[in-house]
Amino acid sequence: MSQAAEATLLVRALRREPVERKPVWFMRQAGRSLPEYRELREGAPMLEMCRTPDLCAEVTLQPVRRHGVDAAIFFSDIVTPLEGIGIDVEIQSGVGPVIAEPFRSEADLARLRPLEPDADLPEIAEAIRIVTAELGDTPLIGFAGAPFTLASYLVEGRPSKSQEMARTMLLEEPGLFRNLLERLADIAVASLRSQVEAGVQAVQVFDSWAGSLSEATYREAVLPVSQRLFAEIEDLGVPRIHFAVNAGHLMEAMAEAGSDAMGVDWRTPLSEARRRLGEGVALQGNLDPTVPLAGPEVLERETRNLLADAPERGHVFNLGHGVLPSTDPGMLTELVGLVHEITEKRN
Amino acid sequence: MSQAAEATLLVRALRREPVERKPVWFMRQAGRSLPEYRELREGAPMLEMCRTPDLCAEVTLQPVRRHGVDAAIFFSDIVTPLEGIGIDVEIQSGVGPVIAEPFRSEADLARLRPLEPDADLPEIAEAIRIVTAELGDTPLIGFAGAPFTLASYLVEGRPSKSQEMARTMLLEEPGLFRNLLERLADIAVASLRSQVEAGVQAVQVFDSWAGSLSEATYREAVLPVSQRLFAEIEDLGVPRIHFAVNAGHLMEAMAEAGSDAMGVDWRTPLSEARRRLGEGVALQGNLDPTVPLAGPEVLERETRNLLADAPERGHVFNLGHGVLPSTDPGMLTELVGLVHEITEKRN
Repeated sequence: MSQAAEATLLVRALRREPVERKPVWFMRQAGRSLPEYRELREGAPMLEMCRTPDLCAEVTLQPVRRHGVDAAIFFSDIVTPLEGIGIDVEIQSGVGPVIAEPFRSEADLARLRPLEPDADLPEIAEAIRIVTAELGDTPLIGFAGAPFTLASYLVEGRPSKSQEMARTMLLEEPGLFRNLLERLADIAVASLRSQVEAGVQAVQVFDSWAGSLSEATYREAVLPVSQRLFAEIEDLGVPRIHFAVNAGHLMEAMAEAGSDAMGVDWRTPLSEARRRLGEGVALQGNLDPTVPLAGPEVLERETRNLLADAPERGHVFNLGHGVLPSTDPGMLTELVGLVHEITEKRN
Repeated sequence: MSQAAEATLLVRALRREPVERKPVWFMRQAGRSLPEYRELREGAPMLEMCRTPDLCAEVTLQPVRRHGVDAAIFFSDIVTPLEGIGIDVEIQSGVGPVIAEPFRSEADLARLRPLEPDADLPEIAEAIRIVTAELGDTPLIGFAGAPFTLASYLVEGRPSKSQEMARTMLLEEPGLFRNLLERLADIAVASLRSQVEAGVQAVQVFDSWAGSLSEATYREAVLPVSQRLFAEIEDLGVPRIHFAVNAGHLMEAMAEAGSDAMGVDWRTPLSEARRRLGEGVALQGNLDPTVPLAGPEVLERETRNLLADAPERGHVFNLGHGVLPSTDPGMLTELVGLVHEITEKRN
């Protein structure tokens, strides 16, 4: 048990403590880039899979076995809790989450009852227990969708280019939109608390669509709700990561939501992120996800460049967005080795 | 002819000269938001319409008649010149441009022969002559796709979320990608020169997808080519506008391409754009396109806020991206009147 008593590489890096080498994991490391996933998945609807603890655990473990990454991320989808409270949502292949009856008015709020993880989604805690038992010393990361991003799915009914209907509702009915965000924050908090109780050692909150907002709108309409979300999971004592893509203009505002680490997309150099955010927050990222598609020479050059530009303390290596489905998994395995080799402190 | 001898409001604002009121036009002012367009369009494939001078002229004129905007923008598509040189491209409804045989290798370069506007696209100059004859004192804006954005369409074969195949080619085969950009710059230059000769009084270059690049990559791979493009149309003497969406992180770099004005998307406040870009470039934009969807009160409030934050000199009012198809055209007419009323100098 002496191993378990010491915090993992991932957790220490997220707390900006010294590490003997940089931890590395990849957003979407589980899933379509892996042949063993595609084989297992064959025919099973995504959300059904998320409700099957054995399958879900197996898919979560696959990239750890294959790549030797320093963390697993629980395999699920940010809309799973919505399905858990009875929203009719389906993940359509090649599209993403599709909501049968999009949210359009005050009356729809009633459909967002509080999430009771033990009753609504018992499969998730069960899958987490299976995974953590198998993982041994490797930590498991849990996650949730941020209120604005979940609200966008609910209002638009499907993924959209710039969340126009959601942003229109925000302008036209700010009170209703705020209520929607508050309820979604409650759902995220309940989901994350239950994941931590079941064994995850860190959590990541995805505000994937926040980048469609101006900083002023984000600060006024979204930040207070996301602040509450992070505050209400602080007592759990696990590091909290906050991530959005294509939201460089919101970096300072999003950091004020109060996470321990900020995920950085590939468009913002890590040295710039460090300069803009200061020393008080760890950084996670941010190799361009197309780099592993461009051959081993490019991979090594870009990885070395990135590590030379990254902060020494408080950095978790990751891609700047999810693994692309067309990625050769061999390149990701190579990348893990490369990061370990370059960052390892020889004593 | 004394009217014609004086530069139009639009041209003076783009040159940062004093104006008696701010000019206003809207990206995508012609098209799907107008019932008279949908009626005319019924059944006609987009690119066929772009090749029919009468239709094309009529659609270009519709928003000028209806809204009283201070400029028309020529109705076409950035892929029209590609079709002109024989690339098999189709604009699919709800999708966008789809290239039958995407560009994947050196051999594909041979398919990008130089554009000869008089021979390849005579319909465009003809349509421009019809439009300018009808417009009287209202100026017509021409446009072209920037090399990176056209290259993305060619490599991806269709609109994509973050231009992953194009960005992979850029990393893996930088020489090939550069050649592709150079040829596309030649095509844009030829197209823009011919549009100006036919009568357009300003031009806008759309680099719609540039925002998927980091600033370092943009500067290294794209900027030199876009600089050459703008330099090679400088002698025409018409103001040149440069626009990208969701590219706030590239603003300074894109301004170095050498346009007279920068289009600003709704995420960046105009006062911030002015501070970052200095006084040497005019600004165009940038009301959030969802504002006209959110009712008259929001429209007036947001328009007044925007104008209070905008530079006095060197500002053309526009949306921060194209008119959304679901926009009530009456709200746009109201917006034009509002901008005129608020900015009019009473003598």
